[in-house]
Amino acid sequence: MNLFRPNIQQMTPYVPGEQPGIGERVVKLNTNENPYPPSPAAMKVLAEIDGEQLRRYPQPTALAFREAAGAVLGYDADWILPGNGSDDLLTMIFRACTEPGRAAAYPVPTYSLYSTLASVQDAEVVEVPFDDDYNLPADALAAAASAVTLVANPNAPSGTLFSPEELEALAGRVRGLMVIDEAYVDFADSSAIELPRRCPNVIVLRTLSKGYSMAGLRLGFGVARPEILTGLMKVKDSYNVDAIACAVGAAAIADQAYKNECAAKVRASRGLLAGQLEAMGFRVWPSQANFLLVRPPTVGAGQIYEGLKKRGVLIRYFQQPGLDDKLRISIGTDQENAQLMRAISEILSSACEGRGERGEQ
Amino acid sequence: MNLFRPNIQQMTPYVPGEQPGIGERVVKLNTNENPYPPSPAAMKVLAEIDGEQLRRYPQPTALAFREAAGAVLGYDADWILPGNGSDDLLTMIFRACTEPGRAAAYPVPTYSLYSTLASVQDAEVVEVPFDDDYNLPADALAAAASAVTLVANPNAPSGTLFSPEELEALAGRVRGLMVIDEAYVDFADSSAIELPRRCPNVIVLRTLSKGYSMAGLRLGFGVARPEILTGLMKVKDSYNVDAIACAVGAAAIADQAYKNECAAKVRASRGLLAGQLEAMGFRVWPSQANFLLVRPPTVGAGQIYEGLKKRGVLIRYFQQPGLDDKLRISIGTDQENAQLMRAISEILSSACEGRGERGEQ
Repeated sequence: MNLFRPNIQQMTPYVPGEQPGIGERVVKLNTNENPYPPSPAAMKVLAEIDGEQLRRYPQPTALAFREAAGAVLGYDADWILPGNGSDDLLTMIFRACTEPGRAAAYPVPTYSLYSTLASVQDAEVVEVPFDDDYNLPADALAAAASAVTLVANPNAPSGTLFSPEELEALAGRVRGLMVIDEAYVDFADSSAIELPRRCPNVIVLRTLSKGYSMAGLRLGFGVARPEILTGLMKVKDSYNVDAIACAVGAAAIADQAYKNECAAKVRASRGLLAGQLEAMGFRVWPSQANFLLVRPPTVGAGQIYEGLKKRGVLIRYFQQPGLDDKLRISIGTDQENAQLMRAISEILSSACEGRGERGEQ
Repeated sequence: MNLFRPNIQQMTPYVPGEQPGIGERVVKLNTNENPYPPSPAAMKVLAEIDGEQLRRYPQPTALAFREAAGAVLGYDADWILPGNGSDDLLTMIFRACTEPGRAAAYPVPTYSLYSTLASVQDAEVVEVPFDDDYNLPADALAAAASAVTLVANPNAPSGTLFSPEELEALAGRVRGLMVIDEAYVDFADSSAIELPRRCPNVIVLRTLSKGYSMAGLRLGFGVARPEILTGLMKVKDSYNVDAIACAVGAAAIADQAYKNECAAKVRASRGLLAGQLEAMGFRVWPSQANFLLVRPPTVGAGQIYEGLKKRGVLIRYFQQPGLDDKLRISIGTDQENAQLMRAISEILSSACEGRGERGEQ
């Protein structure tokens, strides 16, 4: 007997972005981290964690965090389900809702974890290609009539945003659960956070990894009617959120002023960087997230990615159809973005003068 | 379309033990926490966590922890796979290996999560009843020829232990993966930790929740050949172990002297408590864990559980066939155990004098 299920034997694992060591001197613009530190109020709670909180099992539903998140968003705590990152919520959704004969539908390109999680369940996927402007392919998604329909909003890696109205209309047309993955919403002009009140089949996912600068803490949550969350809790690990994440996350989400201040800085830098790249001939998709999807003018995307890496700047290059002529650049501080732009200038002018990259000689 | 898979709609969720608030004045002997605080070396690392470690994604394979655990156990880091508690390892194993037609076999009663995880996968289970002395039902487990065979060792809730030799013999007879769940091994006389070197189908699971007093941190790991871990990693959440757990856990596991000192105190208290309960007429199964399974002499198990709860002492009562005449008592400090014994004396003598419990009048 082979140790693993046939679909597991065959599947390709999800590949996360590169994570250099904390001490390494790189400009890290490849995994969409927030360039600003976490809330001082949250760091204060972290500093006060004592041995007794570690010795005991955590409260199994992370109640303190649910109450804090609910207070901020205007929901009762029983409409909030926390996870070990919003990836954990996605895992719960795929485990509870998909299997052979119960498919997942989503527009592509998007967050590649959706496809990985469907493979684990051996569930079919309906991948609906975006057009070049990343409009919502609502008719095709509705026609798919899948058990789960997922829309990342803002979408990754495009950064583009759909309006709550468009999403509400789609929710009324799909069968099954509709997941609105708002990982990047803290940098956007609008949100679909009100939809769970009106749409019985909608769950909105949020994370503290991006807007709240806490990717290392692993904390995300879903907002949906309690009936939906009761189903998902059947596949939830009992203690999926640790005691530290619960306490520190509660303080972080309560500090909206700090989060909004950091997000405003990122949004300002995003506008600046987009303008500079456009001035150099890049196509820049309109981003509502903390990254830009761009297509370089002359030099190939892969060559720019490699050239930047040599210069100590990490960005993300997806070697897959539809994306292999593009690059995804996380928004750093203005200083980091300036380093990026200097390096890109060097690469473009060196290519223009017909010279190879030094490292390639 | 119903939102959930049919087996999820039908299944009963796993129910964790009660978790009173940190401030509540109870003697908490119901979820097998270690009564002693975590390692001071680990708490020092926790105190030094900075915002940069939270801002960034964690290293996806928790390398620092894997190296620390490997150094302690004499394994290369690529034989170690960390999880968000050892429950996360169990989840990976069930997701990767079981499905309809690929069953899980285990002796019962044991950790009830095995059955829950099989239900999520819609996989069959072969539950082989223990005899009254909790001997290993090796023939029946081998005959089951399941995709996964699980043995909790020490077993929960019995606390009984199998020898490495018995387990090695069983590993050679089962088909598929054999899981040795050593959650409680830090309180035992022997371990099967050497088996992965010799048996190509064995994975040993460990946790920092019990021996290391870190149930609130959520950190466990599996030890197996890299080929097995590569398969499990396909269903692992990319960032299942957060940056804090990785750093703090590495320090905790490196501090073997402190862990051994706490475990020795628990073992001494276990012997003392077992003797006292036996002197009062309880049957006490021989425990190699940090809890005792006991059968009360005269008063019913449920009545003692309720009587203790009224007196501010929480223990565990499983209302299920084969266990509903027994109680599981976590080993506390000697002071906590003395409080437990005083409360039990009261309950027994009050029942003996034919008086009802005050609260029931």
